[in-house]
Amino acid sequence: MTRPTPLSGFPEWLPEQRLVEQQVLDRLRRTFELYGFSPLETRAVEPLDQLLRKGETSKEVYTLRRLQAAEGEDEQSLGLHFDLTVPFARYVLENAGKLQFPFRRYQIQKVWRGERPQEGRYREFLQADIDIVDRDTLPSHYEAEIPLVIGDALRSLPIPPVKIMVNNRKLCEGFYRGLGLEDPEEILRIVDKLDKIGPNAVKAEIQQKATEAQAEACLALAGISAQDASFADDVRKLGVEHPLLDEGIAELTAVVETAREHSPGLVEATLKIARGLDYYTGTVYETELAGFERFGSICSGGRYDNLASAGRDVFPGVGISIGVSRLLGLLFKADALGVTRPVPTAVLVALWSEEERAASNRIAASLRARGIATEVAPVPAKLGKQIRYAERRGIPFVWFPANGENPDQVKDIRSGEQAAAEAQTWAPPAADMAPTLR
Amino acid sequence: MTRPTPLSGFPEWLPEQRLVEQQVLDRLRRTFELYGFSPLETRAVEPLDQLLRKGETSKEVYTLRRLQAAEGEDEQSLGLHFDLTVPFARYVLENAGKLQFPFRRYQIQKVWRGERPQEGRYREFLQADIDIVDRDTLPSHYEAEIPLVIGDALRSLPIPPVKIMVNNRKLCEGFYRGLGLEDPEEILRIVDKLDKIGPNAVKAEIQQKATEAQAEACLALAGISAQDASFADDVRKLGVEHPLLDEGIAELTAVVETAREHSPGLVEATLKIARGLDYYTGTVYETELAGFERFGSICSGGRYDNLASAGRDVFPGVGISIGVSRLLGLLFKADALGVTRPVPTAVLVALWSEEERAASNRIAASLRARGIATEVAPVPAKLGKQIRYAERRGIPFVWFPANGENPDQVKDIRSGEQAAAEAQTWAPPAADMAPTLR
Repeated sequence: MTRPTPLSGFPEWLPEQRLVEQQVLDRLRRTFELYGFSPLETRAVEPLDQLLRKGETSKEVYTLRRLQAAEGEDEQSLGLHFDLTVPFARYVLENAGKLQFPFRRYQIQKVWRGERPQEGRYREFLQADIDIVDRDTLPSHYEAEIPLVIGDALRSLPIPPVKIMVNNRKLCEGFYRGLGLEDPEEILRIVDKLDKIGPNAVKAEIQQKATEAQAEACLALAGISAQDASFADDVRKLGVEHPLLDEGIAELTAVVETAREHSPGLVEATLKIARGLDYYTGTVYETELAGFERFGSICSGGRYDNLASAGRDVFPGVGISIGVSRLLGLLFKADALGVTRPVPTAVLVALWSEEERAASNRIAASLRARGIATEVAPVPAKLGKQIRYAERRGIPFVWFPANGENPDQVKDIRSGEQAAAEAQTWAPPAADMAPTLR
Repeated sequence: MTRPTPLSGFPEWLPEQRLVEQQVLDRLRRTFELYGFSPLETRAVEPLDQLLRKGETSKEVYTLRRLQAAEGEDEQSLGLHFDLTVPFARYVLENAGKLQFPFRRYQIQKVWRGERPQEGRYREFLQADIDIVDRDTLPSHYEAEIPLVIGDALRSLPIPPVKIMVNNRKLCEGFYRGLGLEDPEEILRIVDKLDKIGPNAVKAEIQQKATEAQAEACLALAGISAQDASFADDVRKLGVEHPLLDEGIAELTAVVETAREHSPGLVEATLKIARGLDYYTGTVYETELAGFERFGSICSGGRYDNLASAGRDVFPGVGISIGVSRLLGLLFKADALGVTRPVPTAVLVALWSEEERAASNRIAASLRARGIATEVAPVPAKLGKQIRYAERRGIPFVWFPANGENPDQVKDIRSGEQAAAEAQTWAPPAADMAPTLR
């Protein structure tokens, strides 16, 4: 076998980076569960026709085939899921009779997109999603709860501050309709390009469907942002009226004000936020990481009313998705997130001779029984070599088993401090028990 | 959309079952880390030629294709991994320069096999693997460590007792060669069928390659088992001699005796264990769950010397894999593993009116800040209805916010007990903090 090389678009972490990822996921899970979200996983595959329901994403799907499928075998076409929302909607429909509604779940899984690889685009990546779905109707207060959860989750990590930018589809649609524009989705798609092509180009594009005054009003709306209910005054000043606009303003006000009480500075009403996918029907979210704004949103989502329905059953929902691989990729590249040591192991038990391995094993077992991660030295090398092995691995303590007249001793190889110790009672300082994020 | 139906071979758990799975994985991880194994994940895909290196498994591979791949586009053929050992071997080769050896990692991921679905066979399932690899040579004491880790991991779960059955390839090969048989792999493949086709059929098959006396000796060897070093005496009694046999006996003795000191009753030398995959070169492991023996091994593996090599670099290893989906599938079907409550939530904060939601949110935030998982009621329904909602979800406590003259109160809805409480100080009994396995 020749030495293998990485596959473009399929990132893999080194062990220390994976340790970081694992700890990040543990903290996210912890917060999600504090808010009562249940863990859930769905299979990696969906029937292809389900994945292609939204034509826009069809080009990103990986399809599957059994290598040894029999000639003419008529199996259902399957593809790998490209997000966690479509599989979740399908899961809710399939298991509706066994779930309690409103149903809140978190889901942390890989997704796959067969895109052409390019800078910052992965073909396989990890997402962490939360969603709340209800049967028939979903109260809009859940749209205000989602940013609290995400705020607590992301703020539990030692990363730069985040800002969740929220908008509301009803607000925009109501505004555009109040202006007399008949294809609000089209306008939204154009406004979505604001950061990319700039206000002049957006205005020119809108004017292909509207008057100059209408285009200017759309741009003025997109320019509004505030961290409190004052955004509503700015919208009102534009003089447009529509019942849907009123609804949207009320919902967005509730989101902003709920977040302002819970976590000042976390949420901002940002009326240019559009979100590409057109299944959103209410609040939409995007999230900026301070210092990494140019890389786009690290956590996005919104309210959807038409994603899960079968016959007369409808299950409206609201959810958001943290792009974990993307976030970690950015932070690793900037050397902005790490861990206090690169391995779980706190103690290396030294070995005097291969014949005395059982004695070293007993010490290790005794430490492990009290939650202290421990390895025994690979070989009974010279002591200096065993200590250097611990150093290389990043293990902070080396344990020397009793030897002749000498009792058991433990050495902190960072400070060089060494003292007699008993395997039944000794413990490292709390900060050294396990690696933690830094 | 019509109501979707399950896909055969792609199991999905209900939320409560996934909660169980999550807790099982947490306990496995905990044990793996106590032994110093680092977490690792590899991408889901490998180049197809890598997956097909062992012809035997080729029929089980799912291949991938980008739905919108351009005509004539010459992309590398990819397939989903069918185990975690092949990707790990590739990862070690690819990253050898960045890893510290001996390298110990655990890996918990889905794998896919495009088999025809049949009873108990999954096409997508979760495995939890541990492996230790070293550069050039791997001391055999690691073959004795693996059962200690797995024993501690599985015994941390409230499941029936497990028995790890071990054998050694060198022992078998040495024995067969000592008998004068020239194709030991072929004999091993026949012995592997012992439980399936019985001793007479095995004997008949071996006799196609050997004399009756040789066949009987092979069967006699396969009949030996013991939980201590006494198996060696039984082997010696068969009167066969070969240097490889001596090596195998010594290694197997070390495995059995190391385990006997650490966890009496855990490990048994069982000389009929063969393992199908032919990359094993030393100790092999299979694991029986008491009461579920007929479903086969829940945890298997062994020592391999030739899986990872590039040019002059070789990385021998030893590892074992817990079939998590299969294990849970069996236990769920037998109703033999569950959780103390079906949701993470400990407390439901009731809601007097939608206008007072902020007050209920504040109580919830205060409880969460002290690690108590809390939800706020979906709607300000009649109190009885809110309590029934908690009951239906399996939430043990309902919190009533202060109301007029009444202070805050909390009710254990299982006992009906209710008392005044403060959100800044109240905590549930330790057993109710989080759901745990039972």
